[in-house]
Amino acid sequence: MIGLAEREEGLDFLPKFGADGLATCVAIDAGRGDVLMVAHMNEAALKATLESGFVHYWSRSRGALWRKGDTSGQRQRLVELRVDCDQDAFLAFVEVGGDGGACHTGRRSCFYRRLETGPAGPRLAFVEAEKPAG
Amino acid sequence: MIGLAEREEGLDFLPKFGADGLATCVAIDAGRGDVLMVAHMNEAALKATLESGFVHYWSRSRGALWRKGDTSGQRQRLVELRVDCDQDAFLAFVEVGGDGGACHTGRRSCFYRRLETGPAGPRLAFVEAEKPAG
Repeated sequence: MIGLAEREEGLDFLPKFGADGLATCVAIDAGRGDVLMVAHMNEAALKATLESGFVHYWSRSRGALWRKGDTSGQRQRLVELRVDCDQDAFLAFVEVGGDGGACHTGRRSCFYRRLETGPAGPRLAFVEAEKPAG
Repeated sequence: MIGLAEREEGLDFLPKFGADGLATCVAIDAGRGDVLMVAHMNEAALKATLESGFVHYWSRSRGALWRKGDTSGQRQRLVELRVDCDQDAFLAFVEVGGDGGACHTGRRSCFYRRLETGPAGPRLAFVEAEKPAG
């Protein structure tokens, strides 16, 4: 049993996966510092990421290990991995290959819409003009 | 049934919660642009956030709705909420009250350790000198 102090203040890497075997990983553009995407890793994805130096995720929709960029060319070379206090979430600072984007819709970041409040309740608005990731 | 195109390209806010009723929320310091913490929202937490303008989460460990900062003073005033392509993850850009921090350990960000590779395998290292959030 790993104690709380050990997990939060220690220097042992003790990643914690949820009941579904997953932990959240936030990918950040190492050069620009902004969030590209949020996805999940299981233990195998984390291991493959650390061994290869390229970020792997677990695709919940496909039920498969997924090396990001295999089809799109948008590989994510791992520059730095940070872990949060209770070691169940990661920040992956990455250098992106291909056109530099991360989103399957063709945009650079998956977070291309923001919430705005209108008279009929919340609505989305595009954050910037839609354009290719490059 | 909400179609994929509607969810990804539309302007209707159609937040998607997982089988556990939760969606991931990444809190970002609106002024500095860096990630403070990763936590979860259920539908009630999202609603309370939008209605109050202060970020609420669902605490998985306590099984309770949680208005961030109620005990610490580290309230998170919502500046902007972004949603990702499939609307199951949020970025909350926040202005933090109190000492400006977010982590219960006293640090500003929960991501205060990074992974380093050593001869005996991966180890953690503190990202910056430990100091109070303020």
